[in-house]
Amino acid sequence: MMERRVPPEADQESEAAAHAPDPWIGAPRFPLERLAAFVVVLLTAAGLPPDEARRAANILVTADVRGVDSHGVARLPYFVNRLRRGLIDTAASLRTLRETPATLALDANNGFGLTLAAAAMERCIAKAETAGVCLTTVRHGNHFGMAAYYALMAPRRGLGGLAMTNASPLVTPTFGTRGMLGTNPLAVAVPTGSGDEPPLVLDMATSAVAWGKIEIARRAGEPIPSGWALDEAGQPTTDPWAARWLTPLGGERATGGHKGYGLGVIVDTLCGPLAGAAWSARVSGSRGPDQPAGIGHTFMAWRIDAFRDPEGFFADLRAMLAELRGTPPARGRDATGVLVPGDPEAAAEAANDRLGIPVKQAVLAELRVLAAELGVPFDLDNSTPR
Amino acid sequence: MMERRVPPEADQESEAAAHAPDPWIGAPRFPLERLAAFVVVLLTAAGLPPDEARRAANILVTADVRGVDSHGVARLPYFVNRLRRGLIDTAASLRTLRETPATLALDANNGFGLTLAAAAMERCIAKAETAGVCLTTVRHGNHFGMAAYYALMAPRRGLGGLAMTNASPLVTPTFGTRGMLGTNPLAVAVPTGSGDEPPLVLDMATSAVAWGKIEIARRAGEPIPSGWALDEAGQPTTDPWAARWLTPLGGERATGGHKGYGLGVIVDTLCGPLAGAAWSARVSGSRGPDQPAGIGHTFMAWRIDAFRDPEGFFADLRAMLAELRGTPPARGRDATGVLVPGDPEAAAEAANDRLGIPVKQAVLAELRVLAAELGVPFDLDNSTPR
Repeated sequence: MMERRVPPEADQESEAAAHAPDPWIGAPRFPLERLAAFVVVLLTAAGLPPDEARRAANILVTADVRGVDSHGVARLPYFVNRLRRGLIDTAASLRTLRETPATLALDANNGFGLTLAAAAMERCIAKAETAGVCLTTVRHGNHFGMAAYYALMAPRRGLGGLAMTNASPLVTPTFGTRGMLGTNPLAVAVPTGSGDEPPLVLDMATSAVAWGKIEIARRAGEPIPSGWALDEAGQPTTDPWAARWLTPLGGERATGGHKGYGLGVIVDTLCGPLAGAAWSARVSGSRGPDQPAGIGHTFMAWRIDAFRDPEGFFADLRAMLAELRGTPPARGRDATGVLVPGDPEAAAEAANDRLGIPVKQAVLAELRVLAAELGVPFDLDNSTPR
Repeated sequence: MMERRVPPEADQESEAAAHAPDPWIGAPRFPLERLAAFVVVLLTAAGLPPDEARRAANILVTADVRGVDSHGVARLPYFVNRLRRGLIDTAASLRTLRETPATLALDANNGFGLTLAAAAMERCIAKAETAGVCLTTVRHGNHFGMAAYYALMAPRRGLGGLAMTNASPLVTPTFGTRGMLGTNPLAVAVPTGSGDEPPLVLDMATSAVAWGKIEIARRAGEPIPSGWALDEAGQPTTDPWAARWLTPLGGERATGGHKGYGLGVIVDTLCGPLAGAAWSARVSGSRGPDQPAGIGHTFMAWRIDAFRDPEGFFADLRAMLAELRGTPPARGRDATGVLVPGDPEAAAEAANDRLGIPVKQAVLAELRVLAAELGVPFDLDNSTPR
């Protein structure tokens, strides 16, 4: 076998992608308003009050607009399922447990995750506008969708923002054989002060790859690279059908996997024990028993002018981003040139604003079933002009 | 060739380590006070005022005590070199640029990195004790050693703490061929409320591996795993002598390297543009021209009781750590069982408190030269009883 200078992961992934049927083939595009209106109908039929349904629809569709379709309308079956099983209290609102001028501890009382997370981040931002910074915890929460949505609420008001959540267990600790942590994502968003440069936004799970990459390999009938996943018995596997747990960001210990694991532990410490929420393997999800998720979130917002003149910050930040994008690029069929966090999502947003939001046929099929179950008209048939 | 279920990285590293001469062979151990006293003599001779030298010695020796010898007395040649070349202003103190009840923007005026960073974190903690949380930036800083030192100042007062810094460029952006970011570490430390359970502490560079791993492979004459480093031309290399740049945590794009890169960008955004410090490739280090480093730091501290009853937090956190350590462990010659962040450092600290702090012969040789250059007695000869 020849020595390979390129790690096998990179090659195998692109080979798998090359052989996989493209899930975007035949995906119709919808205007934002039409897609959102359908989501409102679904969520209202599932029991969510109309105001909350509208807000939740906006949050979900924003993920699709940004190309993060894993956290968009494709998640509706999960949300509707939990609503219909009474696992979420649609009448709940935020309760303040503790408050200082710069901190806030909230209880979401097992209310709908998307809307109460947005309400919590709003309160966090409002306090930061007065105090300079605010750190906010939320207990008894539910799945809040795309973390970047909440972080990005801050730059819209000129502040920096951070959003974190824990989640049901899927990621193994370093040298462990069972998933003990959620993908525990963190998102940070910072304003750039320019309409030409969207906010800098990082939104990352603390696992090496998303579960969706396992699903792509399953559909393609291709092996997954060693190091992505473990099987039920906790053994490394390259068989996507045997994959049960994900490895932390960094993969094996030798390539820094203990750092990704450590980040996941810190996210859980803030969202679980500090918030007074469930933690680690105690968080309930779609694979667990019929009980409230017990998820916790942590949010933060900070004023730029608490630290320096915002114009100076914006100029320096934009120069830094330009210099990073100007790094001499690698060549290779996978190379995209050097981007900064948020560039792929901003490009998707620009295209989808113009052309409409694409929805995969597989997702449309699930939404059609969901509409039938809820007894509402399916309003997204494929004959829609793109 | 047989299929390998273990990624090549893990095996190759242990093979390299197995063939490398153990750098700890013949490393004498010193009582903390003796090692610190020698550091004070060196730093004072290099121009640091005695009070600052004592504080700096404590910070450096703490790294050695915790087994983080890469950031301990082994860094003295770097610090002394910069002091003697007048690149650090030994008379500088912190100046407050902006202040709100919960935020603080400081200027370190190119003073000594270790001591002014500690002074900045002290002020951050004091404000957090009043406001519940405090976010603090520092501009015109210098290399501050081990990030965990500053984060750990918070748990000693019962608070949670965070410390970040940027650094001179060594890490390539994803799909880039030149180092544009420092290793940009972040450290978080949280109290556990128990003497039996040391604070939870994560201290991680946002690069895949530390530069020290390249140096170990050089001494061993062994190749490094693909994916750790790039050469001067930005091409992946397995030759440790050709290695010039490090890859971000996660390595290649397919294994999440864009996340490690993104984390590095966020750390730089807060420590560079937000603090009003240098950023990215503009930070000066030992490889750069003779000028102030221009490093920036960001610190944060938060009260536990701003969010919930501390006893409840401590109980939940300790239960979480116990459950993580109880994860069914992987087998294999590299496997250590499941640890939590800070466990290896706590184990080193327990051993070194008892036996004395080991210092490698190669480091002692450098310190001997340094003492001669500064005209002070070398007080760490190897015949010291251990």
